[in-house]
Amino acid sequence: MTKTKNNENKAILPEPTIRRLPWYLSYVRMLDNLHVEYVSSTQISKELNVQSSQIAKDLSFLNIRGKTRIGYEVHSLVTELEDFLGFNRHHDAVVIGTGSLGTALMQDHGLEHYGLNIVAGFDVRQDVIGQRMGGILVHDIKDLAAWQREHGVSIAILTVPVERAQETADLVIASGMTAIWNFTPYRIKAPDDVVIANTSIYAHLAIIYNRMHNTSVGNNRQ
Amino acid sequence: MTKTKNNENKAILPEPTIRRLPWYLSYVRMLDNLHVEYVSSTQISKELNVQSSQIAKDLSFLNIRGKTRIGYEVHSLVTELEDFLGFNRHHDAVVIGTGSLGTALMQDHGLEHYGLNIVAGFDVRQDVIGQRMGGILVHDIKDLAAWQREHGVSIAILTVPVERAQETADLVIASGMTAIWNFTPYRIKAPDDVVIANTSIYAHLAIIYNRMHNTSVGNNRQ
Repeated sequence: MTKTKNNENKAILPEPTIRRLPWYLSYVRMLDNLHVEYVSSTQISKELNVQSSQIAKDLSFLNIRGKTRIGYEVHSLVTELEDFLGFNRHHDAVVIGTGSLGTALMQDHGLEHYGLNIVAGFDVRQDVIGQRMGGILVHDIKDLAAWQREHGVSIAILTVPVERAQETADLVIASGMTAIWNFTPYRIKAPDDVVIANTSIYAHLAIIYNRMHNTSVGNNRQ
Repeated sequence: MTKTKNNENKAILPEPTIRRLPWYLSYVRMLDNLHVEYVSSTQISKELNVQSSQIAKDLSFLNIRGKTRIGYEVHSLVTELEDFLGFNRHHDAVVIGTGSLGTALMQDHGLEHYGLNIVAGFDVRQDVIGQRMGGILVHDIKDLAAWQREHGVSIAILTVPVERAQETADLVIASGMTAIWNFTPYRIKAPDDVVIANTSIYAHLAIIYNRMHNTSVGNNRQ
């Protein structure tokens, strides 16, 4: 993983801010492609349904400030957001558990546009070990620690069956990896210096099902 | 989509509750597989890092109450959670945009275990229209409205490029679909009676990158 020179200056942002930044980025990337030069927070606000005061506050965390009556310079905003979010640097990762979701992620080249480069897969199943998925070699999970000592990759994408989530996370952490992107619905326990990000796509399904049966009653957004 | 008899009795839950319910379900499913009969909220709490008072409160929304000193009956808890979350009913869906992520989801049979059945794909690219991905036929997006009149599917999974997100969502809504699972980083605008669930997996990447560079500073969880 490439380190940025500015790490030491980078504050821990409130998570809602980090979640909104990629929305701003998508929108200003579009404007940049259309060769739009400036954008106001009012315009971003209208487009994304986020209050303009919130946008100004979020961007001020990055030391980005608009000019009075002109707004933000689109191209620099794209660059600064990409740089801040880490999307323009390469981050190597491994997929642990090459079932349907794991394989799907190994084949999703969209992740590369956000700086994530999957370099290996790991599994317990003898019939997939040694095979390639989306061009990426699947290794025996038993070799994880040795492989990690050689390659020094920090991020593990966890897509094992839920009942294997904790024990596999323990293996990953013991191998020296420091970040787990957890796609299982299991709440992994890990030491404080290990980063855990939970992407519970199934929880979102529950939200859809629940809201679909209740759209007449009220709030339908998440 | 199959409707449940109890729709009219089902309240809109707070979203954090809906997000936690699948964690409880994963855990009690495991216990059920191990033939464990009862579980206390204290035990769930210890396992999942959620306060036991919160667990009791979340489950009380579903009219599930534990017995004093015995706790919750594991097997009924599984059934009631699955039933409430809609994971044991079939919900048909289409994938709009059969690029790498769309195809990945079409091939991810894991979604079926959560009640989601992908029945068709739609795209604009002539070279994929008429092809099958993960056994599922890809149609021309132009035929969406006609296809929808015939099949009456409610859920669209949106995996188009970000710059096509809004216009494609407009097409989906015009076709009569009522729920969009939005995997693009774009904030879609939609009428209030359309359910939108945003799964910004790229936002989670930003969180990982940000936290990895800052684990020494403080909170590393999301």
